[in-house]
Amino acid sequence: MDRLPGFRDFYPEPLPNNDVWSADIRNHVFDTWRSVARSYGFSEYDGPPLEPTELFTKKSGDEIVGQLYNFTDKGEREISLRPEMTPTLARMAAAAERNYKKPFKWFSIPQLFRYERQQKGRLREHYQLNCDIIGEDSPAADAELIALLIDCLRALDLSAEDFVVRLSSRNAWQDFFDARCNDPAKAYEFYQIIDKLEREDPAVSDEKLAGLGFSGTEIREFIAAGEPTAELKLIVDDLAARGLRDFVKIDYGVIRGLAYYSGPVFEAFDRKGEFRAIAGGGRYNQLIRLISDDKVDLPALGFGMGDVVLTELLKARGLLPELESDIDVFFLIEDEALRPRSLRQIQKLREDGYNVEFSLTPMKGNKQFKRAQELGVEFTIRLEGEMAVVKSLKTRDEARLAPEELTDYLVDTIVDRIDEQNV
Amino acid sequence: MDRLPGFRDFYPEPLPNNDVWSADIRNHVFDTWRSVARSYGFSEYDGPPLEPTELFTKKSGDEIVGQLYNFTDKGEREISLRPEMTPTLARMAAAAERNYKKPFKWFSIPQLFRYERQQKGRLREHYQLNCDIIGEDSPAADAELIALLIDCLRALDLSAEDFVVRLSSRNAWQDFFDARCNDPAKAYEFYQIIDKLEREDPAVSDEKLAGLGFSGTEIREFIAAGEPTAELKLIVDDLAARGLRDFVKIDYGVIRGLAYYSGPVFEAFDRKGEFRAIAGGGRYNQLIRLISDDKVDLPALGFGMGDVVLTELLKARGLLPELESDIDVFFLIEDEALRPRSLRQIQKLREDGYNVEFSLTPMKGNKQFKRAQELGVEFTIRLEGEMAVVKSLKTRDEARLAPEELTDYLVDTIVDRIDEQNV
Repeated sequence: MDRLPGFRDFYPEPLPNNDVWSADIRNHVFDTWRSVARSYGFSEYDGPPLEPTELFTKKSGDEIVGQLYNFTDKGEREISLRPEMTPTLARMAAAAERNYKKPFKWFSIPQLFRYERQQKGRLREHYQLNCDIIGEDSPAADAELIALLIDCLRALDLSAEDFVVRLSSRNAWQDFFDARCNDPAKAYEFYQIIDKLEREDPAVSDEKLAGLGFSGTEIREFIAAGEPTAELKLIVDDLAARGLRDFVKIDYGVIRGLAYYSGPVFEAFDRKGEFRAIAGGGRYNQLIRLISDDKVDLPALGFGMGDVVLTELLKARGLLPELESDIDVFFLIEDEALRPRSLRQIQKLREDGYNVEFSLTPMKGNKQFKRAQELGVEFTIRLEGEMAVVKSLKTRDEARLAPEELTDYLVDTIVDRIDEQNV
Repeated sequence: MDRLPGFRDFYPEPLPNNDVWSADIRNHVFDTWRSVARSYGFSEYDGPPLEPTELFTKKSGDEIVGQLYNFTDKGEREISLRPEMTPTLARMAAAAERNYKKPFKWFSIPQLFRYERQQKGRLREHYQLNCDIIGEDSPAADAELIALLIDCLRALDLSAEDFVVRLSSRNAWQDFFDARCNDPAKAYEFYQIIDKLEREDPAVSDEKLAGLGFSGTEIREFIAAGEPTAELKLIVDDLAARGLRDFVKIDYGVIRGLAYYSGPVFEAFDRKGEFRAIAGGGRYNQLIRLISDDKVDLPALGFGMGDVVLTELLKARGLLPELESDIDVFFLIEDEALRPRSLRQIQKLREDGYNVEFSLTPMKGNKQFKRAQELGVEFTIRLEGEMAVVKSLKTRDEARLAPEELTDYLVDTIVDRIDEQNV
């Protein structure tokens, strides 16, 4: 029996002849995301993977509605697997905002689901780092958020030569629209066309734009000029003060398709243009009010960064780490009479925080040693009479000591080696 | 708009007047599970939260089928949110076992879903640590698995006074059954009655047992005698060698409801008997063959430990940690002219691994300092001319130094204090 199409299994490490997905690579990406988000003072939260379908249909443009994994549950509720995190965040923030000093900064790493017609390599689920700042209207918050996005990618060893954040503004586009069209109902359709401009045949886009009373040529000139608004200037200056100027450029070619963005918007792309967007986000100052039925009104902004495009990019740039064994010690039991006492030592080492492996059943000594080498462990230990013999597989050093000295010996040996490497 | 009944929101920390659930407590439990599982040489894996419904109906007793969160997707597939992890594990293990030396030891922390009629405090989702050993028939593997279960609870500060693992044997019950009944078709029903024995009115159980030709009195005597099988003796001796004898007792009152268990089975309970089972598991030597349509035949065993009962138990025993702020530094910007240079230092500190918070907008110095105290940070830092002033909120020490010395100073100060505490 196979898994469902568009879903991934995460084996501990990548299988031969399989794709890139594995739990250890996933943990590498998640751990990096978490530690960078925390360095920016963001706190982790999470919500249910299932929500009332209304939570998503209420806020979203038409684009998302047809792609939901939605169904009716046994209690006749219309429910849906979450296709994005922002509506859940807005619901939670609105419900509990009184408990938090503004602004508050939250992150989450939800798994998200979309039912899209199966395309080559296109998945129906992915994980997404979501980082949001609630309750701050200043462009300083936009800069803080974009800096975090940049540092999440840098912490995975991507550089300014690998990616760029294209910074745009819904306000700038709103002004452009308002100066040329006095029918607000057409704005959403207009944004959709702009959003597809780079992927669509220019003649097709121009015809659509003409239908709304816009000139494609004028729009391309507006994008090419890239004249930053006062707000975008503040954001860029803030990022420059942090030393992150090289990672961002003003680019009105980005507008973000979703209906709910208001102020600045941005997307991160690989410089070579081989992949879809690595991350995207922006301001959505009206969303919390919409989701809370006008009960709570807080400015907010956020971004999402998916694991799929990112991991593919890391692989293409040779930046996936060689993940080492996390087993520290293989405990050799060469004489079965020593098994009970060996078990006691194994237990002690594990309690002291070491990762310890051993053969559950009798096995020849040389086979055990070979297994230890395969696992890439740092030490083997075996009992010999009343003593323990520790062997380092890296330095080949061997030491005989009393079992109760084992833990201290291992610590000292590891610390000494690290010190020597640092000299 | 509310979340669905039976689902949890995880705010960063427990809200006032709210229940115990929060992301920081969840991370505390998950991190502990992960580190103990790794100390036992277990590797992390994961699978899709959605699977073909057939994967679950194929292997399970009737008990589970009516409780699935199942539906038909837009591609007319019968699919279900996973109610347990073992079928996914069996599917993945069967598909890739050639890549792994036997036995292999895997763990996962899936979120699981059951559609049960809503009962007070009963959730429709929970997280569950799943640990399994594939490809080893020896009772040494059962002992290794039970030791891991015990150490997961001990690492959360639960002691032998708080919980006990009740160890039983499907083989012992199978022998009991075979000696008294020659209709194997009745075995599943028989196990179901035994499984409910402790929760059901004795008269009701006795009547059901009599209907199958068994004597309730004889069964209670068999349980009371608790005569360990040779297999259980080996497991208990192994645990005794590890120093874990106090955490386990032979108890045939446990049998595990699910159909697929074969040899030893066990459940962990709080000693006071206030909660449902904390964890449960056992051998399921036939399951991988069943799931793989006879293609792969590997002995296997595992346990699941849910987060809900466990967290409630930790709370009742006063063992939930006081979670401290993970913000290290609050960077004070008392003069807006210093903001750009302060941003540069904040960026540097974050890149060096410190968690740093600051006010995004102009704020009076004393309000910033108050915010730093509320956040429980360890240090405040502010620029003063060309120098940085570091203040420890724990020792009240203050130091003036060049900005480029900041990181080294923070490391040294923290290390010195830890050394003093250890003296």
